[in-house]
Amino acid sequence: MRTTSVAEGPQVDSQTTITTTMKALVYHGPGRRSWEDKPRPRIQEATDAIVEITTSTICGTDLHILKGDVPEVTAGRILGHEGVGSVRETGTGVFGFRPGDRVLISCITSCGKCDHCRKGMYSHCRAGGWVLGHTIDGTQAEFVRIPQADSSLHHLPEDADEDAMVLLSDIFPTAFECGVVNGQVQPGDDVAIVGAGPIGLAAVLTAGFFSPGRIIVVDRDLNRLEVAQSLGATHVVNAAGHPADEILAITGGEGVDVAIEAVGVPESFDLCQAVVAVGGHIANVGVHGRPVSLRLERLWSHNITLTTRLVDTVSTPLLLNMVASRRLDPTKLATHRFRMSEAMKAYDTLADAARERALKVILKKG
Amino acid sequence: MRTTSVAEGPQVDSQTTITTTMKALVYHGPGRRSWEDKPRPRIQEATDAIVEITTSTICGTDLHILKGDVPEVTAGRILGHEGVGSVRETGTGVFGFRPGDRVLISCITSCGKCDHCRKGMYSHCRAGGWVLGHTIDGTQAEFVRIPQADSSLHHLPEDADEDAMVLLSDIFPTAFECGVVNGQVQPGDDVAIVGAGPIGLAAVLTAGFFSPGRIIVVDRDLNRLEVAQSLGATHVVNAAGHPADEILAITGGEGVDVAIEAVGVPESFDLCQAVVAVGGHIANVGVHGRPVSLRLERLWSHNITLTTRLVDTVSTPLLLNMVASRRLDPTKLATHRFRMSEAMKAYDTLADAARERALKVILKKG
Amino acid sequence: MRTTSVAEGPQVDSQTTITTTMKALVYHGPGRRSWEDKPRPRIQEATDAIVEITTSTICGTDLHILKGDVPEVTAGRILGHEGVGSVRETGTGVFGFRPGDRVLISCITSCGKCDHCRKGMYSHCRAGGWVLGHTIDGTQAEFVRIPQADSSLHHLPEDADEDAMVLLSDIFPTAFECGVVNGQVQPGDDVAIVGAGPIGLAAVLTAGFFSPGRIIVVDRDLNRLEVAQSLGATHVVNAAGHPADEILAITGGEGVDVAIEAVGVPESFDLCQAVVAVGGHIANVGVHGRPVSLRLERLWSHNITLTTRLVDTVSTPLLLNMVASRRLDPTKLATHRFRMSEAMKAYDTLADAARERALKVILKKG
Amino acid sequence: MRTTSVAEGPQVDSQTTITTTMKALVYHGPGRRSWEDKPRPRIQEATDAIVEITTSTICGTDLHILKGDVPEVTAGRILGHEGVGSVRETGTGVFGFRPGDRVLISCITSCGKCDHCRKGMYSHCRAGGWVLGHTIDGTQAEFVRIPQADSSLHHLPEDADEDAMVLLSDIFPTAFECGVVNGQVQPGDDVAIVGAGPIGLAAVLTAGFFSPGRIIVVDRDLNRLEVAQSLGATHVVNAAGHPADEILAITGGEGVDVAIEAVGVPESFDLCQAVVAVGGHIANVGVHGRPVSLRLERLWSHNITLTTRLVDTVSTPLLLNMVASRRLDPTKLATHRFRMSEAMKAYDTLADAARERALKVILKKG
Repeated sequence: MRTTSVAEGPQVDSQTTITTTMKALVYHGPGRRSWEDKPRPRIQEATDAIVEITTSTICGTDLHILKGDVPEVTAGRILGHEGVGSVRETGTGVFGFRPGDRVLISCITSCGKCDHCRKGMYSHCRAGGWVLGHTIDGTQAEFVRIPQADSSLHHLPEDADEDAMVLLSDIFPTAFECGVVNGQVQPGDDVAIVGAGPIGLAAVLTAGFFSPGRIIVVDRDLNRLEVAQSLGATHVVNAAGHPADEILAITGGEGVDVAIEAVGVPESFDLCQAVVAVGGHIANVGVHGRPVSLRLERLWSHNITLTTRLVDTVSTPLLLNMVASRRLDPTKLATHRFRMSEAMKAYDTLADAARERALKVILKKG
Repeated sequence: MRTTSVAEGPQVDSQTTITTTMKALVYHGPGRRSWEDKPRPRIQEATDAIVEITTSTICGTDLHILKGDVPEVTAGRILGHEGVGSVRETGTGVFGFRPGDRVLISCITSCGKCDHCRKGMYSHCRAGGWVLGHTIDGTQAEFVRIPQADSSLHHLPEDADEDAMVLLSDIFPTAFECGVVNGQVQPGDDVAIVGAGPIGLAAVLTAGFFSPGRIIVVDRDLNRLEVAQSLGATHVVNAAGHPADEILAITGGEGVDVAIEAVGVPESFDLCQAVVAVGGHIANVGVHGRPVSLRLERLWSHNITLTTRLVDTVSTPLLLNMVASRRLDPTKLATHRFRMSEAMKAYDTLADAARERALKVILKKG
Repeated sequence: MRTTSVAEGPQVDSQTTITTTMKALVYHGPGRRSWEDKPRPRIQEATDAIVEITTSTICGTDLHILKGDVPEVTAGRILGHEGVGSVRETGTGVFGFRPGDRVLISCITSCGKCDHCRKGMYSHCRAGGWVLGHTIDGTQAEFVRIPQADSSLHHLPEDADEDAMVLLSDIFPTAFECGVVNGQVQPGDDVAIVGAGPIGLAAVLTAGFFSPGRIIVVDRDLNRLEVAQSLGATHVVNAAGHPADEILAITGGEGVDVAIEAVGVPESFDLCQAVVAVGGHIANVGVHGRPVSLRLERLWSHNITLTTRLVDTVSTPLLLNMVASRRLDPTKLATHRFRMSEAMKAYDTLADAARERALKVILKKG
Repeated sequence: MRTTSVAEGPQVDSQTTITTTMKALVYHGPGRRSWEDKPRPRIQEATDAIVEITTSTICGTDLHILKGDVPEVTAGRILGHEGVGSVRETGTGVFGFRPGDRVLISCITSCGKCDHCRKGMYSHCRAGGWVLGHTIDGTQAEFVRIPQADSSLHHLPEDADEDAMVLLSDIFPTAFECGVVNGQVQPGDDVAIVGAGPIGLAAVLTAGFFSPGRIIVVDRDLNRLEVAQSLGATHVVNAAGHPADEILAITGGEGVDVAIEAVGVPESFDLCQAVVAVGGHIANVGVHGRPVSLRLERLWSHNITLTTRLVDTVSTPLLLNMVASRRLDPTKLATHRFRMSEAMKAYDTLADAARERALKVILKKG
């Protein structure tokens, strides 16, 4: 972190050309999106920064928004909560960043000062949380306004690979914090990861930090199971079969120490409760749209721990370190790359992920 | 603990009169129980001890068994998993206890050697767990056989108050381990305890070890709420009203850091999920007979931790210490005392607990 | 915390009279101090606030500084790192406080954003730490400049008792974090607290949050031992006798689970290592001026944990809560009160603490 | 674990030939040892087992004993606390093992029932601890008596590699528990390991379970530093140079998150305190013969945690699992192999470790 210095007023990058519009991917209600002109964002609060996006990506959550599943997102909203870019302008209350700085944008905006932030629960920041591409305009655009910039951006090294970094905005901290850390993966543990989408696969990679025993990945998509194996899964299980029976067989009837739910539907949660060992952990990562049935008539006596979590991005500095030291390679999940102006096509690709064998779709400036 | 010494064969108390029968409270299928003659237990395994019961008590679980809710309990079974007594006989593989020793019987039988016991999860001992009054004969009798005696009994001081001690067989470790410890009660925390039966009230007392902030107790029984207040509850809430609204109002809309479920029905679990703060804990203590609905569509992002646990009785030495040093007085929950020969009447009293204002009903030898 | 709002420029309390000097307690090299005129502090950085002190106090550390033991403190420095007051002016980068706000000043200044702050180690903030009355002017003055105000001040309730609150600037968080939390005091634990000065006595009070077993306090000052007993010590031991033998006798030869060193000399550290039980904790709180001899030839195999810590003041919100809910009364340690203009006399009193029976000496505005 | 069964009396392997003597490596006072006839051990307590040794090894501690540094070891004692073998005889109080079982002998004997064992602190078992080759006869012999066999032996799979397993008796659990676990190595942490003997090298391997950042190994023996690199050290530092300066340079002046002391002399401890970062851990593993100077005048404010520990061998099941699943290969440290009858020569080799490039010297039956 840079040491704090007095900013004598808003700072603007000298290279910034004076334009008032930009291009952005805009939500227009369920099923409707377009790549269109929008006003360029401006500093609204002293703690804001304006970032020019150089790399962004599309999240499964963006597809949920497009289906109308996230009612807080209103028509006219620019989508996207992941991004890498260059700071172009900073408010008078931003001290850690200056125009020209290369930054990773955290999907979670945090003030760093409220009671929740003080406890490391940035996801529930009293003045932030998940707001980008949700309650304020997001990162699938040429520029984005980042509130609470000092505690919501991360400096990037000059030689950082943006395609790797942009995956640290959301999916890697999500998989690691909500899945691996909350699941308390320990050396030798048997771990089941239900769902081999980008989050589940990021959980395979980051669970490896703790040298677990078996890593059993469950999905219906055989291509994704193959990818899981290439990333370190020791066993893969087809969700279309009898996954609970298979997992119990693999673990000698004991079940797994950690079950990571990375889908967000009742069936995948059910599988987790069916296979968790006594004394084990269920770490929910999936975004659920309805209640699930919790089998307390069986589990009340099984000494289990079940956790939920919206990613706090407290682990982002660690993950940056792990990438820098080459102990983690997020780019393994980046299957497709598009110009940002092709964002509409990128969405089509992700919407047809199985056929396209798409995991993360990277959007590059231009 | 006594230092180990070689036992040269089964040891029998010289005072033991040679009789072959005893009296016991026997389950005869749903709704049927009697106080009747049964054969006196004998050593079956080298690690067994025979204990003469001097004080026992009846658990809410025993009432469940009588309703037929616990199918593993078969007709002819002597009930009871709580007790204080004197060792009368020990097998050749018992080294820590001798005839004449005064002992507390743990409701959990544990070998101390299996993988689960090594992790302190005695409840899931590969050779034990909850067996007394469940899958083998229990403690509501003149004598009981205790398997794995070395790791399932605790020495009692000469001057121990048996009425206090017998409450450490089950309800105090249950409330403390499954509720307070699993709920991770910390100084200043707001705690809701749903259910003011003996377990809930024991949670009020033992939560106090950690100096929480508000202790809010919920029940429909106004007498029990009054008792809760006398034991340290800062707020009581009538479950018949709008308890969730009241708890949120008491906590300024934030909810509680720890919600302890001490009933075992969907309604009480629902209340816990309705009032747990973001970042909070739900500690399930109740024995549930059916699934509950887990509101993951709301809680997935609330950073909560939900735990279940069958009591391990790992905290029994601590609780013995807390009673001995007068920092805990379990006898506040002992409302009625009967001779053991009046066990049938004692059951009637407990079955009508609300009208009788009964919490724990103590059974004394004789 | 207040929600952040844009500050449109430095904010100045309208009541502030335009004066350029103030009175302050100034260090002039070893053994020399005076109450004299100094320039009134002004905003230097955007993140500064100017606070008018209404209550301050003198720390044992201030006496050390006066002895010349803290070479970083140079002649001309205003002393003091504890205080309660009213915000008078805020820089453009302060968002959580406004002129007129009543505040507690933390003895630790923290940016809240650097790697150390993110881990809750504010004491080692890259842009702060212990600076007040150390490397910048302090709180024994009519006004003080507080850098990084947003994360170094705490809002106080209107009805807060300032004499209680000022003890939360330093000594209570120090005793609690460095002693009780680092010592991992648990219910039933036997705790030895070596040194019954204000910090040791604050450790007696805050250890109580976790319901320890024996609390054994050691000092040479019989008056302080008496105070310790009145605050909850179960045993007191005269340091002038054979304290190690006494503590071992009290604990049946086992030693204590937690030994808290609250003096800062080799003898008191030695006592801690002599009485810590196997598996126990030594929590160093004292400020040491020389190395100590660590008896590794004995302790290497004793499974002990030894911790050091400069207070982080992460526990200040909790302590404010504990005081507000009347579970902690810091004023028990406030033995003397002076007008701030009598600061010289207050120092004399504290310098002769034993004869004066002084613990904390409170300085009130005026 | 096998389920418990009643042993009807001492069980003796039918293959056991009736002999009354055996060969063993015997200590005869400082500097004197011989390979000589000793009476074959017999069951003394019901909880004993007699094990025929098939593989043993020599520990650095055995060399210390020979120097007379461990006064509890008296002349006539058979040395050795590491071994793999076959159970030949069991007492009436042994339930988990039978003659013919292949076992790993833990260097720590534990009853599993005392207060210390219940907390997982087997090293301080009230009825055991480190006794083998210390206060009772040890494993560098054809046969050994193992007290508390049920909780001091581990079953081995049929296909276990004895040369790997024997390193789990002591050095791997020691390095892992006292160094890596106590040091709280976390992903991304910088770790310094001072001493590249077998323990230090085992720490290199087991620190890897947690994906640390830099692993910096310090020693004077260039061969050992080379081995350290082959096992995963990212940096090696010659202790004969300026190791503190080098480590600070490697870590950008910050120092290491974890410093593991694996030598046992003041100089190596000094190095650890010189290079530990603020907020870091010093995990002492070395056996020290004299006090060290603890620089509290500097460290009192550095938020460090210093731990000591005699290995508890609680991690042995995990380590057995890690070896079985090929995530750990202890045999990398086994440099020499001898027949047990060549034990005198094996000692000579280890005593001249640097020239012989010896790490662990394996003794095979015969």
